[in-house]
Amino acid sequence: MDLQFLGTSSGVPTKSRNVSATAVIEASGKHWYLVDCGEGTQHQLLRSSLSVRDLRAIFITHVHGDHCFGLPGLLASAAMGGRSEPLDLILPTALHAWVRLALSASDTHLPYPLRLLPVEQMAPWQSAQVQVSAVPLSHRVPSVGFVFTELNPEPRLDVQRLVAEGIPRGPLWGHLAKGLTVEHAGQRLEACDYLKASRPPRRVIVCGDNDNPGLLAEVARDVDVLVHEATYTQPIVERNGNSFGHSTAAAVAQFAETAGVRNLVLTHFSARYQADPKRSPCIDDVREEAQKYYCGHLTLARDLQRYRIGRDGYLLPVMA
Amino acid sequence: MDLQFLGTSSGVPTKSRNVSATAVIEASGKHWYLVDCGEGTQHQLLRSSLSVRDLRAIFITHVHGDHCFGLPGLLASAAMGGRSEPLDLILPTALHAWVRLALSASDTHLPYPLRLLPVEQMAPWQSAQVQVSAVPLSHRVPSVGFVFTELNPEPRLDVQRLVAEGIPRGPLWGHLAKGLTVEHAGQRLEACDYLKASRPPRRVIVCGDNDNPGLLAEVARDVDVLVHEATYTQPIVERNGNSFGHSTAAAVAQFAETAGVRNLVLTHFSARYQADPKRSPCIDDVREEAQKYYCGHLTLARDLQRYRIGRDGYLLPVMA
Repeated sequence: MDLQFLGTSSGVPTKSRNVSATAVIEASGKHWYLVDCGEGTQHQLLRSSLSVRDLRAIFITHVHGDHCFGLPGLLASAAMGGRSEPLDLILPTALHAWVRLALSASDTHLPYPLRLLPVEQMAPWQSAQVQVSAVPLSHRVPSVGFVFTELNPEPRLDVQRLVAEGIPRGPLWGHLAKGLTVEHAGQRLEACDYLKASRPPRRVIVCGDNDNPGLLAEVARDVDVLVHEATYTQPIVERNGNSFGHSTAAAVAQFAETAGVRNLVLTHFSARYQADPKRSPCIDDVREEAQKYYCGHLTLARDLQRYRIGRDGYLLPVMA
Repeated sequence: MDLQFLGTSSGVPTKSRNVSATAVIEASGKHWYLVDCGEGTQHQLLRSSLSVRDLRAIFITHVHGDHCFGLPGLLASAAMGGRSEPLDLILPTALHAWVRLALSASDTHLPYPLRLLPVEQMAPWQSAQVQVSAVPLSHRVPSVGFVFTELNPEPRLDVQRLVAEGIPRGPLWGHLAKGLTVEHAGQRLEACDYLKASRPPRRVIVCGDNDNPGLLAEVARDVDVLVHEATYTQPIVERNGNSFGHSTAAAVAQFAETAGVRNLVLTHFSARYQADPKRSPCIDDVREEAQKYYCGHLTLARDLQRYRIGRDGYLLPVMA
């Protein structure tokens, strides 16, 4: 699974960071999923290799505008782009009427089926490639993280079983390898029974806003990648006397270290953190604060950067 | 009055053009007005010298999403930026509930008064500097153009009147010149009675989508600048057999020529028109088609470009 960040700023866009949106891309590289959809997400897609035609589902972590105001435009542009595939949109119930009103009031007609599902009663959602479940977080409004788990990654023929059942090597094996159902000795053989994952499934968690990383203790066990907000650094929260329901880099780093998270990605940075290291506060302050508490593989998300979990299990930038 | 284009693409954003939004800036250079607010308008503002704090009012021409989906984000970011000045938002009644629901569902609280006014029953709106009225156009949904007329531009003391009324030259004149009320010979003198425009007021029309430029015949008389969509060129409409309620460059140019429009600005170009003149169709096709029919001062709007009406009455780009 790859990750591509379409927005890494908190609350408001800046010149170099848009508001929240994260693409989770199947290992096949084709279909993908979107977590949050701040205003301008469709604009960011124009600057990526992702197409809204290949988008399988959208997941919204919470109701705040910087996480969802890009929905109407994305849905309308997908329509104008001729999308016909169904699209699932999993989001807080409080936003359902707003999305529907955006489409009806603007006279927007979608040529594809759009299914709105409530995140609050979300049963694990799944496609052929991934299962997605929600984990409750703590913020000023209800917020969740989404746990992506690969299903049957890189399936290979279960040769042991085929041989044991006396299914002859040849065209039958080839058809099963392609996922087709075959007949043999008067019996129907389903491909899924003869294909098994050739590596363990990856697990990635992409969180919404959250001031209590400890809520992830259970789901973060053995996770490959944890994507979590680090809106502030400690000195800023101390000066403001308020974290507004957000986490500091320190708090997330401490949690990730304790939980043994292999790859931690921080995102959703307050617009006050400058890119220029000569200015203060700057984004390096966030990195330095996290590194004090976390010895694992740390990444500070950058807009439009795509990352891949390598064979060694570490998340690395994919060169364009 | 200056004009700055924040979005000049029709329907969907492209890499070089955002969806519709046009800033009309007072001659003083401080306060400004926004016509339409497609998604990403607030992002474009980050790349301009305009501040949402100085925005006086927003006017929306029609309900289509590429003209209004940027409203929730702009309003929320103005709140986060600490705006306290009231803001008037003049828009189709069909969008009022959607704007209100965007704010309430996303738990967005505005620290400034927001007044929603229906464009359908719009009385001329005015600030100290401009009056704005609406003119009905023709599109797939109700659409209007907004006519901006300067009020009392660059006021100077009416010396003739002051002398005739025997008001002595000196501090009294100075106070009146500053717009203050003064007392003289037991009478209150209001500055507005002793200040008069030192040049004729400018008039600028910024139109929404429209397939019948002739509807502007009356208001376009003696207008300084007409900003009108030219979504297509004639060959494209002929090939498609449908203009989708839009105008061709030819139709707008013919109208502007007949009406004697001094400055015609075309905008809202279909995303198919490429910037690269070696590709077809390209934006030069739009210019060439318009020039066949219009001999006045023609401008094809470009994103983020600011234009000014010079002393000679012609609209020219302002160098950054």
